[in-house]
Amino acid sequence: MSENIEQLIKELTTKAKTASHAAAGLSTELKNDFLAKLADRLVEATDQILAANRKDLEAAKTMDLSGPMLERLTFTPERIAAMAEGVRAVAALPDPVGEEIERLKPERGFDLRKIRVPIGVIGIIYESRPNVTVDCAILCLKSGNASILRGGKEAFHSNTCLGQIIGDTLESCGIDRNVVQLIPTTDRAALSELLKHDESVHCLIPRGGENLIRFVVENSRIPVIKHYTGVCTAYVDAKADPAMAESIVINAKCQRPSVCNAIENLLIHTDASAQLPGLAKALHDKGVELRVDEPAAAILAGTGLPVVAASEEDYRTEYNDLIIAISVVPDTAAAIRFINTYGSAHSETIITEDPAAAAEFLSGADASTVYHNASTRFTDGFEFGLGAEIGISTDRLHARGPMGLRELCTYKFIVHGKGEIR
Amino acid sequence: MSENIEQLIKELTTKAKTASHAAAGLSTELKNDFLAKLADRLVEATDQILAANRKDLEAAKTMDLSGPMLERLTFTPERIAAMAEGVRAVAALPDPVGEEIERLKPERGFDLRKIRVPIGVIGIIYESRPNVTVDCAILCLKSGNASILRGGKEAFHSNTCLGQIIGDTLESCGIDRNVVQLIPTTDRAALSELLKHDESVHCLIPRGGENLIRFVVENSRIPVIKHYTGVCTAYVDAKADPAMAESIVINAKCQRPSVCNAIENLLIHTDASAQLPGLAKALHDKGVELRVDEPAAAILAGTGLPVVAASEEDYRTEYNDLIIAISVVPDTAAAIRFINTYGSAHSETIITEDPAAAAEFLSGADASTVYHNASTRFTDGFEFGLGAEIGISTDRLHARGPMGLRELCTYKFIVHGKGEIR
Repeated sequence: MSENIEQLIKELTTKAKTASHAAAGLSTELKNDFLAKLADRLVEATDQILAANRKDLEAAKTMDLSGPMLERLTFTPERIAAMAEGVRAVAALPDPVGEEIERLKPERGFDLRKIRVPIGVIGIIYESRPNVTVDCAILCLKSGNASILRGGKEAFHSNTCLGQIIGDTLESCGIDRNVVQLIPTTDRAALSELLKHDESVHCLIPRGGENLIRFVVENSRIPVIKHYTGVCTAYVDAKADPAMAESIVINAKCQRPSVCNAIENLLIHTDASAQLPGLAKALHDKGVELRVDEPAAAILAGTGLPVVAASEEDYRTEYNDLIIAISVVPDTAAAIRFINTYGSAHSETIITEDPAAAAEFLSGADASTVYHNASTRFTDGFEFGLGAEIGISTDRLHARGPMGLRELCTYKFIVHGKGEIR
Repeated sequence: MSENIEQLIKELTTKAKTASHAAAGLSTELKNDFLAKLADRLVEATDQILAANRKDLEAAKTMDLSGPMLERLTFTPERIAAMAEGVRAVAALPDPVGEEIERLKPERGFDLRKIRVPIGVIGIIYESRPNVTVDCAILCLKSGNASILRGGKEAFHSNTCLGQIIGDTLESCGIDRNVVQLIPTTDRAALSELLKHDESVHCLIPRGGENLIRFVVENSRIPVIKHYTGVCTAYVDAKADPAMAESIVINAKCQRPSVCNAIENLLIHTDASAQLPGLAKALHDKGVELRVDEPAAAILAGTGLPVVAASEEDYRTEYNDLIIAISVVPDTAAAIRFINTYGSAHSETIITEDPAAAAEFLSGADASTVYHNASTRFTDGFEFGLGAEIGISTDRLHARGPMGLRELCTYKFIVHGKGEIR
């Protein structure tokens, strides 16, 4: 068995590398034609997709999946239609391949340009949500990459069905079907094997829980672009407008607490202490548990609001829930230090009317996205105008923050000479 | 001992992370002031540097170093002066930190910009040449990064002396001296330990032989930007101008055969077979050994030129010497396949007067730099107008090809809002 897996993955990655050269050369027209056809085919195949999904849901009964996991696993005709709409939206996006990024001016006088090109072969490793299969396949294809998809075993039948539809549609457009390949087994050994092929897989994007991501990082020499956690902070500065502070903090914490760009920490400048009781009450009224440091506890002592003492571990924790850690800081520099110590380099916001404090914060807070007077909830490919996103990177290299089609590309230098020699 | 090393590296990487926040905020003026002072100090300290270097050269006698390694290890007053000039040249380069890369247009209307920021902490692992200590330190500093430098044991005294001068100059400018740290031991365990600190080291750049690079890649979870080999190819197309083909091939192979952007392979279109005897003779006259495939051997049979049969291994080999592998191909597509199979994604050139063949080649050949009618020898940070380079990446992520100051940076998104919530 293990020898078969080894052989299977070797063949699959070799095919992907060959297919990546074809993918890189596909015209925008042909890619968009494929995407339009795929959207139609997905809707036409609704019954077939639902039947495959039912097999997964049946098998899930024996798997001890959580409610949210089951929910994410479930297809409905509406979800399939939404998935097809997503495909049409990607067709409508500009093609990043071949864009001129920069024209350089070498002294020798030859023409030198930096051009956007696909990365090559991208491996995507993900968990339960089967629509990720389609999302990732189409973003990789539109950006000229070949993809190798490895979904979770709980969505195996759904993913296989979607992979078949994608492959058939590719073929019907005259495109090598190996441009998108699903790993056709749920055997964990296949994942371990995939991670070894740094000669043909150029980038890995794990999407899922922290354990999955750590497994990928620890077991591969292939560059990984990842998103560990979203520990985001709002800092209410001395010169914050109280109404704006409350609006932003409530939005960033409560509008959708389960997502990575929701805040987990609230910092408040000593000189804005008077705003804390109001903020804390507003959070409490929304059902948020308050975990506070000693100064914050002292300020809130008279309010009768229930609080819990915050531990240092709280400041590092992505609750994904209606819980917030609150700390009082003496100045903007301390807020920055807090963020650079405990944050996950995702999204941070300062609420202030003081441009100097804002500038200090925006420069000093080390995160993919830093906000002045806006909610952290906007860190998102669609909100940023990227059109779609394959994820949000908390890495620094090669992409940081929301990753769209351009971030699935690298570049090459192209020289046109007239016989220049050195 | 090993516990001491563990502790040493832990402290050093922690200090580097803290210092990186200071480094990121340094003004251009202060950075340039430091660089100007450093250039002066290096020249003033010529005797001190030469004395340290003599200790290394003395120790080298017991080390069995090759002639070229000894040569690279040796400082002279002229080399120290040249090193100081290099420092002044970096002072004169534009500061990449804070550059606006892009202004995005989110629908919500908040102001959203993508700004260039330092990567953070960069680890440089290198071998004998001690001037690399200064080169890397200043490029990292000018780009706002903290650096951790790990030179070879053969240059330990020279490196320590240079590190001391850098640290003292930093301090005299009021900059945290931990912005540039040398690992103060030649113990191999220190390198292994450094590779573990992915929580505080953000990027590794190994510069040296393939064994060193592989060791780094295989033993670290930190992103590595690297340059394995330079297996570059020139393709003489059916419509190549014979004089230009000869000029470029001779230049790319012979002008400096030991460097990574010299060619190792020559491909020739069947329809340009008539050019091969002349090309081969010109190469032979320059002392180049010809390793040829069967069709090339047949073409050259009547010339009396000495040839050797090429093996497949030859096509993958970076000779760094006056040896070339020659193969005849039926068309541009075959040339591209050859390059994408055997090349190291460094630099490739097509010589042709046919724009269609050039376009096919430039798009299809998968390398950091692709040339039309110019020598591959131009793949170089100075030639590209980057001002200086820290290396040439054969990776795709995050930087590809010559890496200058900008490539030592990443980016962050900065949002200015008016209280926007989602």
